[in-house]
Amino acid sequence: MPVGTRGAVKAVTHRDLEDLGAEMILGNTYHLHLRPGDDPIARAGGLHAFIGWPHPILTDSGGYQVFSLAATRKVTEDRVEFRSHIDGALCALSPEKATDIQSQLGSDIAMVLDECPAPSTTESGSDPVVSAMRRSARWAARARARFLRLQNEPVDDVIVTNPGQAQFGIVHGGTDRDLRTESVQRTREIGFEGYAVGGLSVGEPVNVMYDIVAHTAPLLPADQPRYLMGTGMPDDLVECVARGIDMFDCVLPTRNARNGQMLTRNGVLVIKNARYAEDQDPPDPECGCYACAHFSRAYLRHLYVSQEMTAATLMSVHNLYFYLDLMRRIRDAISFGSFEKLRSEFHQTFSRRQCST
Amino acid sequence: MPVGTRGAVKAVTHRDLEDLGAEMILGNTYHLHLRPGDDPIARAGGLHAFIGWPHPILTDSGGYQVFSLAATRKVTEDRVEFRSHIDGALCALSPEKATDIQSQLGSDIAMVLDECPAPSTTESGSDPVVSAMRRSARWAARARARFLRLQNEPVDDVIVTNPGQAQFGIVHGGTDRDLRTESVQRTREIGFEGYAVGGLSVGEPVNVMYDIVAHTAPLLPADQPRYLMGTGMPDDLVECVARGIDMFDCVLPTRNARNGQMLTRNGVLVIKNARYAEDQDPPDPECGCYACAHFSRAYLRHLYVSQEMTAATLMSVHNLYFYLDLMRRIRDAISFGSFEKLRSEFHQTFSRRQCST
Repeated sequence: MPVGTRGAVKAVTHRDLEDLGAEMILGNTYHLHLRPGDDPIARAGGLHAFIGWPHPILTDSGGYQVFSLAATRKVTEDRVEFRSHIDGALCALSPEKATDIQSQLGSDIAMVLDECPAPSTTESGSDPVVSAMRRSARWAARARARFLRLQNEPVDDVIVTNPGQAQFGIVHGGTDRDLRTESVQRTREIGFEGYAVGGLSVGEPVNVMYDIVAHTAPLLPADQPRYLMGTGMPDDLVECVARGIDMFDCVLPTRNARNGQMLTRNGVLVIKNARYAEDQDPPDPECGCYACAHFSRAYLRHLYVSQEMTAATLMSVHNLYFYLDLMRRIRDAISFGSFEKLRSEFHQTFSRRQCST
Repeated sequence: MPVGTRGAVKAVTHRDLEDLGAEMILGNTYHLHLRPGDDPIARAGGLHAFIGWPHPILTDSGGYQVFSLAATRKVTEDRVEFRSHIDGALCALSPEKATDIQSQLGSDIAMVLDECPAPSTTESGSDPVVSAMRRSARWAARARARFLRLQNEPVDDVIVTNPGQAQFGIVHGGTDRDLRTESVQRTREIGFEGYAVGGLSVGEPVNVMYDIVAHTAPLLPADQPRYLMGTGMPDDLVECVARGIDMFDCVLPTRNARNGQMLTRNGVLVIKNARYAEDQDPPDPECGCYACAHFSRAYLRHLYVSQEMTAATLMSVHNLYFYLDLMRRIRDAISFGSFEKLRSEFHQTFSRRQCST
């Protein structure tokens, strides 16, 4: 899922996304709640209507942003209080409030509010990880109760803009297998339309992340979506699908594009490098995206060096195509029973380091 | 012609331009000469190949930028010396050099190098205007001689990337009718594939500009293109077509879009205004552009206030559509003999001031 933080995937239009075959985008509850606000969005008919995107949308709960972006925060059992990073206004998010906001946004998939412990406190089995996991589980039960109540009766002034909304729980527990097992049990007991694995890709070594995914994913229902939040590099997608994950979101393809980094089958192509100044080849000769079909490395480098906005657009289009095409190829390979072949071929060319060509 | 200063129209892709029906874009010789340089562009096969735009391109001569952007400049009869606004490097442009650069760029229409007197010295009949007009005429003869020589024989190391290139002369003379008449005579004597009117829209009152266009355009050949450089507001297009102009270029549609100003049939819509915060109407309900067909004023305002890059893209798409559609409607009206009707109807709704809706 391309990330459209404020109701727009940065530097690309909805038309570009449709052309790329994007099926679901992600919107950020924290950002949209602060600006323009979920009230005006609800009055416009919900997020789909407000942003003019008729395809699926997933909204996060705002938890991750509160714990990473907000200026100050205070967590109690009832809720988390924080100050807006925009204007310093005092705000609060509870499991019920995060559910209400997403009900007003009317996304197709809503996430429960979770407590995200700071990466510095995520040592295996440490107290903050244990307590955040258990509090997240208690909050998940409250979020689910609120979600079910909103489906059945009017609640306060909440406008339910999408009666068909689904709600996903989030498994926590850091890098501790036992905590992950406990979190899965508590989250499954509540019961959701799908399950996410949170609290990974926050700085731990990639093999530790793979191990925790390999441990956690099979504990989740096979007939419901499993979503790994905030991951990652292209090889992470391949490896985490191999371990049982179905859905991903990540800002990496669009953020790296704005920094001049193009993801290709061979690895990361850094467009500003002088060696591309007269390179008339497309960024990735095997790629079928609009940018690779029409433009050279030399031209994209010129746009990037000249700080033209279309540099970000064209490189975002490429990176999103690369990710979406990789997921398409993975799905096809699974259908045809050739996933292990794709996985092995992918690693033969892809490197997390800079391309040498 | 949408302006693509550095080989890209700001914030929109070539695909957007093709969708808008743009037929010719403008590239800036000054900017492209400094970065990436006309040599690498020529080695790539010319500007069309370098930027991946298979449709017509017009390049200016660089004169206007040298006289408005460059840090310092010294004009002699032979050439103008200046320092690059990018790195302060000492550069020079002569009529021959400007012709050579554009020959390497391979645009479809090249412009002669002209001396553009500072707007502060353009009082009618003042010495700087007289001398700049006469020097521009002498330079035009040299530029034409160079252009014809390049068509017939190899010259130095110049790579002629577009043998079918045309060259336009530029009429100067500020706001003085007699000087304009003299400039037309001298420029026509040299003989070009088309003629531009330069040195207008530089701060003079709009009615003075209209008067000078009305005086100058009919003196130019009726069977060759007449091009008014750097103009203007939508009503300027209507009024200057009425006075005999065929071609325009202007950064206004794209620059104003980046500043949140949308041009509509009623005038200028300033998207950041609070009254649009919950306005679910499209910017211009009668407009057929992608932005107006899919997005509300409220959403575009949200994107602009949130500093999302797509705000610039969508508003540029709208403004370019408005300009290109206006010119299409003008051409159709001329074909059907109904131009005066269109002109009168246009002024009934359009105002240069902010829209009240």
